[in-house]
Amino acid sequence: MHRIETDSLGEVRVPADAYWGAQTQRSIENFPFGEMERMPIGIIRALALVKRAAAGVNRAHGLDPTLADAIERAAAEVVDGKLDDQFPLVIWQTGSGTQSNMNANEVIAGRANEILTGKRGGKSPVHPNDHVNMGQSSNDTFPTALHVAAVEALNRDLLPALGRLRGALAGAALAWKDIVKIGRTHLQDATPLTLGQEFSGYAEQLRGIEAHLKAAETHLLRLAQGGTAVGTGLNAPEGFGDAMAAEIAALTGRPFVSAPNKFEALASNDALVQFSGTLSTLAVALTKIANDIRLLGSGPRSGLGELELPANEPGSSIMPGKVNPTQAEMLTMVAAQVIGNHQAVTVGGMQGHLELNVFKPMIGAAVLRSVHLLSTGMTSFATRCVEGIEPNRRRIADLVERSLMLVTALAPEIGYDNAAKIAKHAHEHDLSLRQAALALGLVDEATFDRLIRPGDMV
Amino acid sequence: MHRIETDSLGEVRVPADAYWGAQTQRSIENFPFGEMERMPIGIIRALALVKRAAAGVNRAHGLDPTLADAIERAAAEVVDGKLDDQFPLVIWQTGSGTQSNMNANEVIAGRANEILTGKRGGKSPVHPNDHVNMGQSSNDTFPTALHVAAVEALNRDLLPALGRLRGALAGAALAWKDIVKIGRTHLQDATPLTLGQEFSGYAEQLRGIEAHLKAAETHLLRLAQGGTAVGTGLNAPEGFGDAMAAEIAALTGRPFVSAPNKFEALASNDALVQFSGTLSTLAVALTKIANDIRLLGSGPRSGLGELELPANEPGSSIMPGKVNPTQAEMLTMVAAQVIGNHQAVTVGGMQGHLELNVFKPMIGAAVLRSVHLLSTGMTSFATRCVEGIEPNRRRIADLVERSLMLVTALAPEIGYDNAAKIAKHAHEHDLSLRQAALALGLVDEATFDRLIRPGDMV
Ligand SMILES: O=C(O)/C=C/C(=O)O
Ligand SMILES: O=C(O)/C=C/C(=O)O
Repeated sequence: MHRIETDSLGEVRVPADAYWGAQTQRSIENFPFGEMERMPIGIIRALALVKRAAAGVNRAHGLDPTLADAIERAAAEVVDGKLDDQFPLVIWQTGSGTQSNMNANEVIAGRANEILTGKRGGKSPVHPNDHVNMGQSSNDTFPTALHVAAVEALNRDLLPALGRLRGALAGAALAWKDIVKIGRTHLQDATPLTLGQEFSGYAEQLRGIEAHLKAAETHLLRLAQGGTAVGTGLNAPEGFGDAMAAEIAALTGRPFVSAPNKFEALASNDALVQFSGTLSTLAVALTKIANDIRLLGSGPRSGLGELELPANEPGSSIMPGKVNPTQAEMLTMVAAQVIGNHQAVTVGGMQGHLELNVFKPMIGAAVLRSVHLLSTGMTSFATRCVEGIEPNRRRIADLVERSLMLVTALAPEIGYDNAAKIAKHAHEHDLSLRQAALALGLVDEATFDRLIRPGDMV
Repeated sequence: MHRIETDSLGEVRVPADAYWGAQTQRSIENFPFGEMERMPIGIIRALALVKRAAAGVNRAHGLDPTLADAIERAAAEVVDGKLDDQFPLVIWQTGSGTQSNMNANEVIAGRANEILTGKRGGKSPVHPNDHVNMGQSSNDTFPTALHVAAVEALNRDLLPALGRLRGALAGAALAWKDIVKIGRTHLQDATPLTLGQEFSGYAEQLRGIEAHLKAAETHLLRLAQGGTAVGTGLNAPEGFGDAMAAEIAALTGRPFVSAPNKFEALASNDALVQFSGTLSTLAVALTKIANDIRLLGSGPRSGLGELELPANEPGSSIMPGKVNPTQAEMLTMVAAQVIGNHQAVTVGGMQGHLELNVFKPMIGAAVLRSVHLLSTGMTSFATRCVEGIEPNRRRIADLVERSLMLVTALAPEIGYDNAAKIAKHAHEHDLSLRQAALALGLVDEATFDRLIRPGDMV
């Protein structure tokens, strides 16, 4: 069953039970990428939140209160996820997001008309462009929605996940502050440190990136709304941008403000590029951390074996009893994709001409996917890996015991060259440092025992 | 309703109507990324095709024919897409794809057991590891499936789409071979060429990349199967790799062969990295082409305006009657994502230690997504944009007429410096070249008219 909807190009048949109208239907047909490529629902809900805010602001500027009320109600339903299936459009469409904006305008009008008349869809009494999109263009509304969605995902998902992982790493740093282990630089044995010190470095990486994320957020908090088509604000009432930012701040509880320059806000996506770059930095840090943890956990017999990682599942389809660092593998794959997404965002951010960057849907979708992957990945890695790690104290002590680089502590007393002779002699003759030192007569027993105390070296 | 399934770590509750078993269920719980992050179905179906081939080869090596038959039947159902909903696992899991391999083993065993006993699931008489995974490891099976899926997507989707777009561009090149237009280099007016020549360059870009894709395919045609866990082939019968490649070639109609070195085939993903790099080259070419087309189509009043692009939808939510180059925007966004995916694939390809690269699911998923985006994007761009372009002959002729760089044709006769004087004089006094040349007396009328023939300059 179909009904006829119209737009400026003519008539279009849409499914009778759909809330959307002609422009959504055209986009479905013109960009057949399939449902795995749908515009992220976080962007749709943020768009609806903007529409809800606009109805309120427009009521104060003369929009018929009956229409404004119905628009608010319909938009709230979209925000609440009640009409998710009415947003079939994909990421790959016009670069301004016009078609997703029109999808939102049409669905909200279609639902508002149903509320007011009992008849679904159409353009009367609520018109998708004249009323739902009143005072707006896709060019300011869509980037506004992307910023709202990004700030929401950052605060709701990413920062809590980051906090959880940082907490797990900091907790390990504290719990293991007295476990002296061998340090390694260039993958070669170096002087000792504690396992707690090593993990404190990981926790600090995440603390640093948390600050960078918050700095990136300040740019995201500036909203393009009010610029309309090219940044001049044509067809929006005076003060619309400020009023909208205040309304969106009230609806979300986040300190959104109107962007100080609407030309920058439409023509560039620098705020999202910078945020994506910070996500990429996070991905770099997570890769270092997860790589270290799986290296320290390598074994169980023929690896470094300093850490025992939780066994969450059988590791192998062919090797019975094998256990693998699967959470680290998941997290490093996630990180690679996030670094790739940032490359996509960078390519998109560089382009787009003059008054409008036209890579917005791709940029928004890539950023939201990165946030989702990192949030889920960090929470999982924290709870299913880091929080369950057991240090293998015996192995760690053995390796310290056998290490040659403790010799460094002798150098201030007997000189670098003599100390090197001892290390070389020990390595060549498979002796302990102590045995080698005494055999070469380069230091006496008492001095050796006074200086070579791994626990004092950290 | 649930039933109990077991693996080497113990008991797990799975939904009563699921075909999968314990390891799939554990992965669902351990990697909660949601259904938008599912392992691409092309990889699942390729995995099932490998399982089907393995049942046949294993029958010749002593697998009970009753079990082999049931495995073949169950695997064929997965290949045919009848059990798609039995593959809930996501991309973000163990880096060997063990969990998706076990998902396939479990579902195929679970369905084969239903075929044989009427009871769904379980491990008897068909065992997921001992029978469905017989002679295999995830480490050779999963990369084999990735190669099969990539070759399939290349031939079924990408090359036809590329051919369609190349055909559209070549058709335009032919149709417009006599339309003389102004050339531009550095975005500044240059000597003339025909619109056909310009478009022939685009078609040739795609022809070159088609050859690169076919070269990349030769590496993808080499299958890891037979290497089992570390490349030595332990637990696979002699000749298993060759027999599997032959069987897979027979089932797909593609010339697959057994990889000459199984250590390379497990430890690296260079074949997929190279393929992804070629997809990225294609993305670069498509960006150039789509950017040119939207630049030549810019206007309608205040742009270059040499081309009229089809109006597929209303362009703007705020500006009535505006039409936008939406297919070019879609294609350049797709290209940016493909370039980003290649970055992800590159990061993944560089890592993974010693006997196994453990970024396989991410690499496979990114490559298949890139192929899907490019295939759908190119077909759409060809049919909804290129094939509908109309050159604006009047505008093109006007711009040639007004161009200063036709003066280049005078240079061999009157010298570079005199020719430059004419161009400069024409520009400063807003004259035609002819007027300027005669006014400066640097060339006579007959010579000018003999030399300045745009149609002869192309
Ligand atoms: O799943 C396998 O067959 C192997 C995995 C591993 O190497 O651990
Ligand atoms: O959809 C809009 O509001 C504007 C699009 C455009 O600039 O063409």
